[in-house]
Amino acid sequence: MTMPDPTTAPTSLRVDAGRLRTRFDALARIGATAAGGVHRPAFSDAHRAARAWFAETATAAGLDAYVDGAGNHSGRLMCGPPEAPTLLLGSHLDSVPNGGRYDGALGVLCALEVVETIRDAGLRLPVHLEAIDFTDEEGTWLPLLGSRALAGQLRPADVAQPQGGADAFADALATAGLTPEGLLGAARPPDALAGYLEVHIEQGTRLEAVGMPVGIVTSIVGIDRWHVTFTGRADHAGTVSMADRRDAALGAAAFTLAAREVVLSNFPEAVANVGRVDLAPGAFNVVPETARVWLEARTPSAERLAALGEQLMQAAREQAVRFGLRFSVEPIGGVAPTPMASEAQQALREAAEALGLGAPELTSGAGHDAQALAAVCPAGMLFVPSTAGRSHTPEEHTPWAACVDGANVLLQAALRMAGAES
Amino acid sequence: MTMPDPTTAPTSLRVDAGRLRTRFDALARIGATAAGGVHRPAFSDAHRAARAWFAETATAAGLDAYVDGAGNHSGRLMCGPPEAPTLLLGSHLDSVPNGGRYDGALGVLCALEVVETIRDAGLRLPVHLEAIDFTDEEGTWLPLLGSRALAGQLRPADVAQPQGGADAFADALATAGLTPEGLLGAARPPDALAGYLEVHIEQGTRLEAVGMPVGIVTSIVGIDRWHVTFTGRADHAGTVSMADRRDAALGAAAFTLAAREVVLSNFPEAVANVGRVDLAPGAFNVVPETARVWLEARTPSAERLAALGEQLMQAAREQAVRFGLRFSVEPIGGVAPTPMASEAQQALREAAEALGLGAPELTSGAGHDAQALAAVCPAGMLFVPSTAGRSHTPEEHTPWAACVDGANVLLQAALRMAGAES
Repeated sequence: MTMPDPTTAPTSLRVDAGRLRTRFDALARIGATAAGGVHRPAFSDAHRAARAWFAETATAAGLDAYVDGAGNHSGRLMCGPPEAPTLLLGSHLDSVPNGGRYDGALGVLCALEVVETIRDAGLRLPVHLEAIDFTDEEGTWLPLLGSRALAGQLRPADVAQPQGGADAFADALATAGLTPEGLLGAARPPDALAGYLEVHIEQGTRLEAVGMPVGIVTSIVGIDRWHVTFTGRADHAGTVSMADRRDAALGAAAFTLAAREVVLSNFPEAVANVGRVDLAPGAFNVVPETARVWLEARTPSAERLAALGEQLMQAAREQAVRFGLRFSVEPIGGVAPTPMASEAQQALREAAEALGLGAPELTSGAGHDAQALAAVCPAGMLFVPSTAGRSHTPEEHTPWAACVDGANVLLQAALRMAGAES
Repeated sequence: MTMPDPTTAPTSLRVDAGRLRTRFDALARIGATAAGGVHRPAFSDAHRAARAWFAETATAAGLDAYVDGAGNHSGRLMCGPPEAPTLLLGSHLDSVPNGGRYDGALGVLCALEVVETIRDAGLRLPVHLEAIDFTDEEGTWLPLLGSRALAGQLRPADVAQPQGGADAFADALATAGLTPEGLLGAARPPDALAGYLEVHIEQGTRLEAVGMPVGIVTSIVGIDRWHVTFTGRADHAGTVSMADRRDAALGAAAFTLAAREVVLSNFPEAVANVGRVDLAPGAFNVVPETARVWLEARTPSAERLAALGEQLMQAAREQAVRFGLRFSVEPIGGVAPTPMASEAQQALREAAEALGLGAPELTSGAGHDAQALAAVCPAGMLFVPSTAGRSHTPEEHTPWAACVDGANVLLQAALRMAGAES
């Protein structure tokens, strides 16, 4: 253990890149897949093993290991006055099935590295620090489960309707010593939280395209999802002429192309996706009666998201009319856009500048634990590049130098958020 | 039972429309659905009950009931010399799930009615007659199972790979006292067959459009089926920009529209259908990596079917290039176009003329038992109108007068095919 050196100026502190690398490699072995990624869905054996490793590692680093009622695992450093609030730094150790080594894991390791570096430096701060691994960010059961629980954003209705069903969820929770009721009791008082900062891979190509190692997130996109259903008539595909058909597949096909045009032409900052189309009855020889299109749209602005939704539904209506179909829309939930706190953005910007790093502003197209925390405390995110924009796959990769830059920016930003004297 | 009246001239014979109606209604009650159709998939309880009813009814009509190794049920009239071949008249009693009352059933009832009418008239003919109900025309297990078995067109490889799997198929056969081996032994020597005639609903709107009660089928369409697969890249649908995506859904959508244009522009006599599209991985938030399009095309001409297939694949290739996708094609079987025998067409034409009925020539866009029989004997088909072209649904309907016209044309055509002296 490095001896504290209280004479070190906070602005000159840097993380231990070698220690970070050693831990990154050790963690990547837990749930490692043959393809070079990791498979750590929430509450799987590999996921629980990764969390146990994190608790042991935090303890060995001199932090206080802690697990809350939502299973969130923390390494705490009580470096502030007794009643001081806590600045959280973190991300998540769960992965999508057959995911990559960086998504979530890098953020948890950076958080641990930052807290340990501050501990090693023997700094006293106006706040406590906590490196935290949130439960089930990826939504194997409930997206952002741990961060929503901590932020008091989880409702009993959410817990009652997890992916995979309530019984399987209860069984999975039990493997970690958790209960559905315990999840709802994990909320922390907002005045106990000084803020939240998270390092995460970008999962896009913008940082790579401009050759920058870090980027500051200004907002996490809002998401709207719909089932857009076209209804025509099921007909024998051999005996009914093309002209006599009311073919729901044509509405779905034309709408899939039209939705893309709406985004490209009128919403360059947005994205939309048709991820699935269910044609029914679904046989070679039956003209489809119904086509259910699974549509999602995302933009960083609530007003723009609403406008995009309107234009998409107008496009669906036009294609339905074109092919003599009926048309209905079922909203399938969504998330409002979440701006990151200006003070968190400012801390990250100053930290990057202090390190001589360019740090463009970005929006996040994916959801993150930071959006749950943003409801109760100043929250910010720092992105590091994703090689070729790949994510949720074993090919997921970030240049190591950028990972270290990310950790150091997090360190300096945390000190600023914490109100450390430089 | 009507006493034979050998003085009746064959050309003046007519079916008993009341008897036909009574039986039509009785049969429609077997497997009747609340929606007004029938549910009689091959080897279901309702299907076996319908066949038992047919055997009893044929026996009561003075015919010899017979069941072959493929489960085909017949009512035979030995009205020819001992060694004479047999003229088959028939169709099928099985239905698609939740189908209509006319498809197949009408043809079997017309066949029974014709054979009984000839029996009642006491005619001696150069051939024997047989009203036959073929097994599983609709392909619950194997399309045209019974007719292919009888015509020697069923291969061991077909029997080994039924829809639903070999074990379930063997269980279903067992409920009817049949075995997979027995199916292959049901082939009849071609020289035992004098020909085959079938009355069937058109399943399209052409007869209704011209106001004609019957139509003479010149050819049964050929069918080609493919899985056309577009492959791009799975990406996070929030973080990867629209421009960076290689979205397989776009290829499938554009191809669905392009396939229709190919048919409308260049193959007005043909039809094509996209009955199903599988986008994978198939989630709201993942850009589809693969899109498998289930495509079928039909035309009455083998040359045109080949040309249509080429143009469709060319269209798929163009859309793949347009969206930066790879593209592959897997043929999923097909059927060659089957012309109906000229002597059968002639017999049907003369019969319609003798009855003062207009009878336009039509092609059949659907497969029928007649196409299996055509491989081994002169086969012909007569269509009756389908109201609004509806088929394979409870709304299936044919004006009753046209059903009676169809039965009488079948009667007169059968006498001509049989070589009856007028």
